[in-house]
Amino acid sequence: MTGAGPDPASEKVRLVRAAMRMIEQTGHDVTRAALASGGGFPRARVEAIFPEETDLFDAIVENWFVGHIAIMEEVLATDLPPNRKMFEFFARRFVLQRERFRADPAAFRVYCELGSVHFERVRSYVDLADHYLCELIAQAQAEGAFEGLAIDEALSLINQMVHPYIFAEALTYLDHRLSEEKLGRIVDTLFAGLCAADRGARGVKGLRAA
Amino acid sequence: MTGAGPDPASEKVRLVRAAMRMIEQTGHDVTRAALASGGGFPRARVEAIFPEETDLFDAIVENWFVGHIAIMEEVLATDLPPNRKMFEFFARRFVLQRERFRADPAAFRVYCELGSVHFERVRSYVDLADHYLCELIAQAQAEGAFEGLAIDEALSLINQMVHPYIFAEALTYLDHRLSEEKLGRIVDTLFAGLCAADRGARGVKGLRAA
Repeated sequence: MTGAGPDPASEKVRLVRAAMRMIEQTGHDVTRAALASGGGFPRARVEAIFPEETDLFDAIVENWFVGHIAIMEEVLATDLPPNRKMFEFFARRFVLQRERFRADPAAFRVYCELGSVHFERVRSYVDLADHYLCELIAQAQAEGAFEGLAIDEALSLINQMVHPYIFAEALTYLDHRLSEEKLGRIVDTLFAGLCAADRGARGVKGLRAA
Repeated sequence: MTGAGPDPASEKVRLVRAAMRMIEQTGHDVTRAALASGGGFPRARVEAIFPEETDLFDAIVENWFVGHIAIMEEVLATDLPPNRKMFEFFARRFVLQRERFRADPAAFRVYCELGSVHFERVRSYVDLADHYLCELIAQAQAEGAFEGLAIDEALSLINQMVHPYIFAEALTYLDHRLSEEKLGRIVDTLFAGLCAADRGARGVKGLRAA
């Protein structure tokens, strides 16, 4: 501290935490005005830290995903084989989400709902996860997995096949049916079976009369 | 018609249709009283057809799932090979859901929400789908698929890996990223790769430090 006033970074953290407590208590989104009056902060300070209304929400989203980003970067930096890496990539974030869900299911539901309503503020984090997953897919393909699939095709199929482990809301209705063990089997299945070859499940005519 | 009064079966159909129109217009659940006053039906007739308040909701749920049940029974009765059968089992119901979603996305969202809030009224249909899927898994295992997995384990893993195609709400945010072609690849992947063998994605120690 230089004595020149409060540190803006720690002040921002304090405001974000206060805003999150208010969201968890009220069950709905919080505006800068509500944060100032509800939290006893000077309105001018709140608006100095968050010049636009959306800046407050973005800071909350950033705080939510900071752990996810750290996990993805850590996993990408390891020298694990591709199947291990992909498991850790999904499993560690899943475990983090589950901890949050079990710590406060009602608050977790509120964040899921806010994320869904304001999906445009969350999209960049989904895109970042896809970007890292593409890197992982390329590494796996270099070792022979997902043969013949374009990276974008593999990306979409893998995201769909692990959907309950990346779609946070699934915890609210599947929780105990989701496990690291099952996720491990799913990743094993992907590495053993996912490729461009048509093995006939769809049939030659697509949907047809019985 | 015998002339002895309105046919109770067709009267029930008429009331269910009216109730569904009201749900789609108002965006929330409808009571017997609201159906009677809103639809101009004598309260006594509505209560004769639906003796309990839950009977009306149950009739709406039954109407929603009747097409699903017909599809599952038709597919089970075919002599298609197990991989084709499993694809049709999921794909035909997915296409039916997608038609409903695209015909009226707002109404579809309301039904998803009601189904989620009153999940105990929907559970028997989920259980029935699981029952049929177990039959399919047993047939597939008789031909060598899903080796070493208990039927219940295979059931849970398969449901999780096709989750976006059976979780109706997924249409509301994934729609055009879901396709019969991708579902075909997923079913191919299941038949090629899903078994009890541990191929190492999870590692020997589960989650571990990088």
